[in-house]
Amino acid sequence: MAMIERSDTGAVARLTLNAPERMNALSDAMLAALMAELETLAGQDHIRAVIIAGAGKAFCAGHDLNEMTLGRAAADDGQAYFADLFGRCAAVMMAIRALPQPVIAEVHGVAAAAGCQLVASCDMAVAAEGTRFGVNDVNIGLFCSTPMVALSRAVPRKQAFEMLTTGAFVNADRACEIGLINRAVAPDALQSATMELAQTVADKLGGAVRIGKRAFYEQLEMGVEQAYLHTGDVMTQNMMMAETAEGIEAFLSKRSPNWSQ
Amino acid sequence: MAMIERSDTGAVARLTLNAPERMNALSDAMLAALMAELETLAGQDHIRAVIIAGAGKAFCAGHDLNEMTLGRAAADDGQAYFADLFGRCAAVMMAIRALPQPVIAEVHGVAAAAGCQLVASCDMAVAAEGTRFGVNDVNIGLFCSTPMVALSRAVPRKQAFEMLTTGAFVNADRACEIGLINRAVAPDALQSATMELAQTVADKLGGAVRIGKRAFYEQLEMGVEQAYLHTGDVMTQNMMMAETAEGIEAFLSKRSPNWSQ
Amino acid sequence: MAMIERSDTGAVARLTLNAPERMNALSDAMLAALMAELETLAGQDHIRAVIIAGAGKAFCAGHDLNEMTLGRAAADDGQAYFADLFGRCAAVMMAIRALPQPVIAEVHGVAAAAGCQLVASCDMAVAAEGTRFGVNDVNIGLFCSTPMVALSRAVPRKQAFEMLTTGAFVNADRACEIGLINRAVAPDALQSATMELAQTVADKLGGAVRIGKRAFYEQLEMGVEQAYLHTGDVMTQNMMMAETAEGIEAFLSKRSPNWSQ
Repeated sequence: MAMIERSDTGAVARLTLNAPERMNALSDAMLAALMAELETLAGQDHIRAVIIAGAGKAFCAGHDLNEMTLGRAAADDGQAYFADLFGRCAAVMMAIRALPQPVIAEVHGVAAAAGCQLVASCDMAVAAEGTRFGVNDVNIGLFCSTPMVALSRAVPRKQAFEMLTTGAFVNADRACEIGLINRAVAPDALQSATMELAQTVADKLGGAVRIGKRAFYEQLEMGVEQAYLHTGDVMTQNMMMAETAEGIEAFLSKRSPNWSQ
Repeated sequence: MAMIERSDTGAVARLTLNAPERMNALSDAMLAALMAELETLAGQDHIRAVIIAGAGKAFCAGHDLNEMTLGRAAADDGQAYFADLFGRCAAVMMAIRALPQPVIAEVHGVAAAAGCQLVASCDMAVAAEGTRFGVNDVNIGLFCSTPMVALSRAVPRKQAFEMLTTGAFVNADRACEIGLINRAVAPDALQSATMELAQTVADKLGGAVRIGKRAFYEQLEMGVEQAYLHTGDVMTQNMMMAETAEGIEAFLSKRSPNWSQ
Repeated sequence: MAMIERSDTGAVARLTLNAPERMNALSDAMLAALMAELETLAGQDHIRAVIIAGAGKAFCAGHDLNEMTLGRAAADDGQAYFADLFGRCAAVMMAIRALPQPVIAEVHGVAAAAGCQLVASCDMAVAAEGTRFGVNDVNIGLFCSTPMVALSRAVPRKQAFEMLTTGAFVNADRACEIGLINRAVAPDALQSATMELAQTVADKLGGAVRIGKRAFYEQLEMGVEQAYLHTGDVMTQNMMMAETAEGIEAFLSKRSPNWSQ
């Protein structure tokens, strides 16, 4: 069976991490499979929203500790392997952010360590009530330093610090309160609620969402003045799209836009 | 009737966007009128707080789509006009931020697209329960790229992203939870609650609030070390004001300060 | 009696600001005492968590206004003294952030002005229900410009701005909602709840928490790409620690780690 299963529903692609016996750990193979899927999606304009879900009991348990322990066998005690591993993991997280399409995490069971980073790295997240989120590797002596890059940009500072230094898990309601996820739903509504959100996004004009998502993250790293200069350019470019002219005309004429996407 | 009506109550100036038949859209004329009012206020030290409200059923519906559509008639399909328009709109938003006096949005009905940006750009916001906030132009194929500059600095990342890509509106309670506004009140208490907040701010020493507001936004764009250097200078400058010396003496003597403002 | 009392419980150090007759104001002597304690703690690897509490009715009332007023007697009306004072205060706040060990504020009664800054500057905070938090010196004509450096990085923008310009106090529940503190507990549970949180942190591998805390604040001031490069290095370094190898092995063997700390 493939490490990741992809199934498309209209303009929505659903990626299911498929190593339930390892709680969908981000092993070397899983990271490679996820990066390959993202690279494929980046070129598929007909896909306008992406869901990342996990098969089995948990969304994702983080890195594969068995595999990491095997890495220590090298002459350098694994140093080169670990540096490469964390680099590949970060590259996947940044590829989600750089993907033209919005990416939604569909989270259930447990999202731990790099699995929690995956949730924080997606553009949006929906979780089943009862899901537990933690950056808990501090419990085994490994501070979740790369996961905190995404976590500390999604939730307030003191709440991120507490999760990182206590290793404690928060439930879905708390994750919602602090901004880590967009909403918590009943477990049996998780898949439909996530698909509904994805469908809502996929119904928009793909070209507009693509330049908007890119600009969203770009402008966040700028000062306000530079951010306005940049997004002013982006919005002018958006206005020049024929589909946008049609969208505005349709709105003013109180009809549905005739988009070819 | 003027595009914007200004009425002063003591040290509080109230600007009312006054194009209710267009839901106070930020047309060329409205943007120009708002910028003119802000430029006047910037030089009026006797005003120590500003309220921005909207006449009619809605606070502000965003850009004027009819006017934008007319802009397409130009030889360049409106490109120069749009670039100029988004630049003028951003200049107004940055003028609110740069205004010496704190600015409070008094929001009712609907704050949509650039109208939601206006709320996010004000230093504080009070809204009537039932008010709906959205950056919804994605529904017509135009991603709210400039509005997101203000929005994504006011609310957490995932919540901003959801509003931008779904075009969905949030109500006043939710806007309060995510930090977009300071509080929601009953509709018939909106004007008095906003005025009370403005009055509270206007009762402070104007000179202290002016240097404080400027420093607030300046230091937000600095690293912590540089921010402390800068605000240390600002606070020393504040201590050198005769009115501040009087304020501290009055406090230590358990009497009211004798301020000439 | 010492200006600050330190008492250790295992790997947790508790610093109690001990000038209750002045509501533990951050006087010259208090700032010097706090800096001295932090400098000592920075070299004590056997301490893995620090609590800062206040004796008497309040956590900390901010700067010592009587002392500041005396400073005005100098030929320059105190300008040099104030600049030095705000510099020393900022240095203490940055020393908390730079301290290798996580620092938890144990807050009761009142945390005002620089006292609220102290709460915001600690890595985490627990407060008794009923505690009031404010940056209220604007009421006496002195904008809390240095406190806002810490405050505006802990809570959302509009909520920070309101506290700064109204001088209004928020209670512990509201402080929790906006992210200024981690939790509010019943007053008679404050000390035990704070100690429990400190103990949880102190039970982790000290070396991992030390490099993690440092990286936490470093990466917050970087763009995402640079942040991942930096934290990838930090996490690789963490993996090279013998204690971390033991922690992971212990976890995989379902036993407790044998750490010498």
